[in-house]
Amino acid sequence: MRFQDVISINDFRKEDIDYVLRVAERLEEELKKEGTLKYAKGKVLATLFFEPSTRTRLSFESAMHRLGGAVIGFAEASSTSVKKGESLMDTIRTVENYADVIVIRHPREGAARLAAEVARVPVINAGDGANQHPTQTLLDLYTIKKEFGKIDGLDIALLGDLKYGRTVHSLAKALSYYNVRLYFVAPKGLEMPRHIVEEISNKVEIVETSDLEAVIPKVDVLYVTRIQKERFPDPAEYNKIKGSYKVDLKVLEKAKDTLKVMHPLPRVDEIAYEVDNTKYSAYFRQVWSGIPVRMALLGILLGVIK
Amino acid sequence: MRFQDVISINDFRKEDIDYVLRVAERLEEELKKEGTLKYAKGKVLATLFFEPSTRTRLSFESAMHRLGGAVIGFAEASSTSVKKGESLMDTIRTVENYADVIVIRHPREGAARLAAEVARVPVINAGDGANQHPTQTLLDLYTIKKEFGKIDGLDIALLGDLKYGRTVHSLAKALSYYNVRLYFVAPKGLEMPRHIVEEISNKVEIVETSDLEAVIPKVDVLYVTRIQKERFPDPAEYNKIKGSYKVDLKVLEKAKDTLKVMHPLPRVDEIAYEVDNTKYSAYFRQVWSGIPVRMALLGILLGVIK
Amino acid sequence: MRFQDVISINDFRKEDIDYVLRVAERLEEELKKEGTLKYAKGKVLATLFFEPSTRTRLSFESAMHRLGGAVIGFAEASSTSVKKGESLMDTIRTVENYADVIVIRHPREGAARLAAEVARVPVINAGDGANQHPTQTLLDLYTIKKEFGKIDGLDIALLGDLKYGRTVHSLAKALSYYNVRLYFVAPKGLEMPRHIVEEISNKVEIVETSDLEAVIPKVDVLYVTRIQKERFPDPAEYNKIKGSYKVDLKVLEKAKDTLKVMHPLPRVDEIAYEVDNTKYSAYFRQVWSGIPVRMALLGILLGVIK
Repeated sequence: MRFQDVISINDFRKEDIDYVLRVAERLEEELKKEGTLKYAKGKVLATLFFEPSTRTRLSFESAMHRLGGAVIGFAEASSTSVKKGESLMDTIRTVENYADVIVIRHPREGAARLAAEVARVPVINAGDGANQHPTQTLLDLYTIKKEFGKIDGLDIALLGDLKYGRTVHSLAKALSYYNVRLYFVAPKGLEMPRHIVEEISNKVEIVETSDLEAVIPKVDVLYVTRIQKERFPDPAEYNKIKGSYKVDLKVLEKAKDTLKVMHPLPRVDEIAYEVDNTKYSAYFRQVWSGIPVRMALLGILLGVIK
Repeated sequence: MRFQDVISINDFRKEDIDYVLRVAERLEEELKKEGTLKYAKGKVLATLFFEPSTRTRLSFESAMHRLGGAVIGFAEASSTSVKKGESLMDTIRTVENYADVIVIRHPREGAARLAAEVARVPVINAGDGANQHPTQTLLDLYTIKKEFGKIDGLDIALLGDLKYGRTVHSLAKALSYYNVRLYFVAPKGLEMPRHIVEEISNKVEIVETSDLEAVIPKVDVLYVTRIQKERFPDPAEYNKIKGSYKVDLKVLEKAKDTLKVMHPLPRVDEIAYEVDNTKYSAYFRQVWSGIPVRMALLGILLGVIK
Repeated sequence: MRFQDVISINDFRKEDIDYVLRVAERLEEELKKEGTLKYAKGKVLATLFFEPSTRTRLSFESAMHRLGGAVIGFAEASSTSVKKGESLMDTIRTVENYADVIVIRHPREGAARLAAEVARVPVINAGDGANQHPTQTLLDLYTIKKEFGKIDGLDIALLGDLKYGRTVHSLAKALSYYNVRLYFVAPKGLEMPRHIVEEISNKVEIVETSDLEAVIPKVDVLYVTRIQKERFPDPAEYNKIKGSYKVDLKVLEKAKDTLKVMHPLPRVDEIAYEVDNTKYSAYFRQVWSGIPVRMALLGILLGVIK
């Protein structure tokens, strides 16, 4: 990889992504054979979570342990020097003395980029505000590749709040590197932002629609995200839409046999529990993908994996 | 052991308990000889404490480190996805991808059982509401066995709030597997529930009383628990009882020389500090027992100890 | 070292300090050569932070990992048994069963000393109220020694709130073991307490002044600390003083070429950011010093380093 930090999926060329996915695959195999690995033995990861995100934090910490390394950090900002008025820059220039790599989650957009500019050690962005969460995108791609053996040639629907959901923005951009057809399925008012559609529409075929039913039979992947109640001025409107976008067995009746349903989690009720144990459900295997992908990123940035 | 999880002491047959105690003894010896062991090398424990319990959490984490393993987790629910409305089931199906064994503490009764049913990895209950805390019971038994070289043949008093105290319910049931005489010493209104007395009264001899003084000279073990102020409608009543159930040097004057006082801790003032450095005090050694017992359970469930 | 705990810098003779600094130097070299060390393999550190102090906690935890050991603990008191009314003594007598060494931070003066008296395992004070923070003092001395190759013969200014700042009290006492000249530079009303000046004035030359400008050209080390707004009855007075004690490029114009600026951090605005990348700035290297110094203390107290 040509860079030292993982801040935004926009920094990744296609070959960077493919490289991470290949390393992740290799590590997953080694993990299965040997149990915990030793690449990061003696290395320390600092997880600086200025806002809580338990699943992301635990995923990184598990990945670091599986690589043989150690972890320090904090799970929320309440107990940090930030309260004493310290700048993020000073916090980073302190912590870089304690750790070999930093994972940062911060409510402020741009915080991860700033941290990376300041730090001598590599920095991984685990979410900064509504902005970027690049490791989620990479694990999404990894999941698709594992489920189908490839990404090229697939029909992929992104469903839900496509306007505000940062996950789907990053994923759409990353998928545009591949030979795929994208379906953007959103209720009115929550469509994918124009600037993203324009940015990628010359690279991939895009179908925009609000009609989930019509899309279902056509796609290989249905990527579901939350539709947040607070986005709707009228609760009645929300309830109507919520109903028609809930993925349950009935909705999946006309799906291809090989359809895979994905979700970045946590879900609230976008996917009915009855889907969990069907052949369609891939969202818990998607959680697992976070381990090899984050192991790959940690290992590459630490310079212990070539 | 015939099961994969540790949810309730009721799931244990006598031979299961004896097996755990034997493994714990063996591990304690190995620990003394070799320092930290390697059984859980490369394994990851997730401690999910949806309500705080520092001593229990630290005990499990220390046990895992002593076994050579690593730990991830959270100390209270405030910073988890639960706030975003995620179900416990989804949390478990996420975390099982990050860890080889899960320890859960949850304020809701039945939460640990649910977690165990969902998870592919083993689950240990570290307390679910007023319900069960099986590892406490096992370490209590282990302590008695270590102090006396046996459990059979002992006279054991359980003292305090026997109505609401889950610790004493579980302990009473587990002790009923052995050839012991039990004294239930409680103030009026806080007696051991009828259903427990009935359940075990055909297996062990039970003496129910509110008279601590009369019991003291007869017993080998005095197991003390807290009497909680909020259980009493009348504060004056509480203060009277509190005084007559406080274990101090005077109360212990007529005790057997070999009496051992135990307590699950934390104590408030049920046991006077003056007792700490007497031959009677076993409650801090009881804390230590948590380490080998939890090492044994972790090792057995992880399949690394036969 | 002749003692088992690190509670107050006052317990240290000069030869104790020199010993710790020598061990720290050795460990820093080994760390550079070998990466993580193995001295504390199989040992467990418990970090008991009854009040939050993220940088100190992370520094200790990183030091323990760099020594090859494991860490358990809590970052703030909210989730501990303290809430249930447990005494500090009982907490310590519990945790000593889980760990080989304890680091404690507590808001109450004397808490660390009490913990050390109770515990069978070594205790390190990471700050108890306005009282002591001995590892900060040791890392300050270590930094000076590394920057200049020696401590003897230097002119050292302590700047800021010298009345309430515990860091400068401990540092002044420790520096009085060496052949140095000390400048106490404080605004009126925040001068170094008389009892400290008297205690050390027969050992080192002391210059007391409020005139920072006059001191700057003379000193080798400028140790800056915060001046806290709340110490001033009149905000206007505070703003005036704050301005004249802010260390920026202009203030440093007449400094020796070899001047080193230090600060225990976190800073608010006592040192302008423009100083960070000059030859004067030593405060981020000072953060690093915490690692070898705390490794040395942990290793010595654990008995794994001779």
